[in-house]
Amino acid sequence: MLALWLENRNLRLRSDVQRPDAGADDALIRVLRAGICNTDLEMVRGFYPFCGVPGHEFVGEVETGPEYLRGKRVVGEINVVCGKCEACARGHKTHCTDRAALGIKGHDGAFAEYLSLPAKNLHVIPDTVSTDAATFVEPLAAALQIQEQISIGSDHRVCVVGAGKLGTLIIYTLALTGAAVTVVGRRPSTLERFQRIGVETRTPDQIESASFDISVECTGNAAGFGLARSALRPRGTMVMKSTYAGELTFDASSLVVDEITLIGSRCGPFLPAIELLASGRVDVRSLIEERYPLTRGLDAFEHAKKRGALKVLIEPV
Amino acid sequence: MLALWLENRNLRLRSDVQRPDAGADDALIRVLRAGICNTDLEMVRGFYPFCGVPGHEFVGEVETGPEYLRGKRVVGEINVVCGKCEACARGHKTHCTDRAALGIKGHDGAFAEYLSLPAKNLHVIPDTVSTDAATFVEPLAAALQIQEQISIGSDHRVCVVGAGKLGTLIIYTLALTGAAVTVVGRRPSTLERFQRIGVETRTPDQIESASFDISVECTGNAAGFGLARSALRPRGTMVMKSTYAGELTFDASSLVVDEITLIGSRCGPFLPAIELLASGRVDVRSLIEERYPLTRGLDAFEHAKKRGALKVLIEPV
Repeated sequence: MLALWLENRNLRLRSDVQRPDAGADDALIRVLRAGICNTDLEMVRGFYPFCGVPGHEFVGEVETGPEYLRGKRVVGEINVVCGKCEACARGHKTHCTDRAALGIKGHDGAFAEYLSLPAKNLHVIPDTVSTDAATFVEPLAAALQIQEQISIGSDHRVCVVGAGKLGTLIIYTLALTGAAVTVVGRRPSTLERFQRIGVETRTPDQIESASFDISVECTGNAAGFGLARSALRPRGTMVMKSTYAGELTFDASSLVVDEITLIGSRCGPFLPAIELLASGRVDVRSLIEERYPLTRGLDAFEHAKKRGALKVLIEPV
Repeated sequence: MLALWLENRNLRLRSDVQRPDAGADDALIRVLRAGICNTDLEMVRGFYPFCGVPGHEFVGEVETGPEYLRGKRVVGEINVVCGKCEACARGHKTHCTDRAALGIKGHDGAFAEYLSLPAKNLHVIPDTVSTDAATFVEPLAAALQIQEQISIGSDHRVCVVGAGKLGTLIIYTLALTGAAVTVVGRRPSTLERFQRIGVETRTPDQIESASFDISVECTGNAAGFGLARSALRPRGTMVMKSTYAGELTFDASSLVVDEITLIGSRCGPFLPAIELLASGRVDVRSLIEERYPLTRGLDAFEHAKKRGALKVLIEPV
């Protein structure tokens, strides 16, 4: 089949990739649409050592698998887990010590004509949710993970640093909590998008220190980390939502003196994400920057790499 | 009066320090006993820019002040706060933006014949608690702050890295929660002290990675931080209980991938600390290494600086 193939930082289009095996508990899924995420870009930059088909944000149609799924449009949880380790037993399946991850680790992904996943990983998409919108279920779930980890409500002042693809979804979901949300970014065109939905916007130099209860770091760089930290009042909470290239240096004593909480946040719950899209409370269409057929997958990646690019979609069929 | 005086990293004994003023809302306290804390040692090393009388762990007798306090033995909360700022309004008085701190910042401390504090900072010590034991109220409160911030119970595996003065109090208080507590240290003599109270002891190389739910970092150095981090299972919580000289470098991405929570922890609640001492559930006597009269205060500091030294007390009278 046709697929993008990553090997030693080299991404190429191959037509000879084997269609994935689907075991007894798996479904074989024809990919309808897939989104390029920053993690994909970082893998191409060599940040993760993955070799195979990348891509983990997808919507597809089940071709073979359990009866209740066949012919249905589905999205899929990306962690393929053992179900037996301590983390699985605890219900923390996204932390399975033996996990593979779709298009990220040990499991071929969605920039291909087909992918396979355990049937239990799949969620059927309601007819009211478009295939375009459903491509955002995975990153929207990741955004919602913040609210699984900490309680956010109308008495909180929340600062989101970084208004890229994931940052935008985070801002959209936080705006629904009733919290006073401020987004920090540099591009006027980006900030304008949020002003329209009643979110305060600031440039980095306009952020007063110690003036927020919660900050969310979505830039993945040291400057963003520093800003998200300094924005926090004592006993504030900083959510780290990005991965970082290399190590980060920080003033650990100030974290102790101010009793700051730092919390890392990764994959999130799919069902509330699907519900948000079905109810129309989060409109992700404005986030789609461009779409490419899989045959032009390399162009899609070039586009997605552009600074400030929003979601680039790949359509295998 | 007689007092230790710190100025530009130079600690000396002075006999000409002015007895502190006690305003209308203050009490003048004759110091009975004071403890040397790591923060005091760090101030002498120049880590904090304090100039004046150091010392913040104390027991004293009220000489002048409100009727209900006069002649009573008291301990005192070290933060002298404005009562008006956002942090005070929120009830986070230890984070008052305008705060002074006894013997640490803008307020002369306890290594002197007398100190003054606002009367509202003081707590009367019950007769059943010895003056020696009461000297530990402030650090014991700091230990208990951990349990104010996170819930710890019998289903938790807790790893305490560093078994110094504060670490020991933390271990004693955690042992009361029913959690499975393991302490990491290097000195056999130190570890033996904990084995006696049913706490598991390990050397750093015996700590299996990802095997604890909660870790408490009490060393204030990068190696301790690294060990406390690696000891945590995914979604574990690391409490930072020490200040650090300079900046710390860490793998921020692994914090995100493992969804680790880092939480800084500082001053804690005095009343439960007094209660613990009164009930005899925490016995701090074995922590007293030596006592010196104030006239030998410099010798007391030299003693306290020794590696592995436990609590050194100073007796002004």
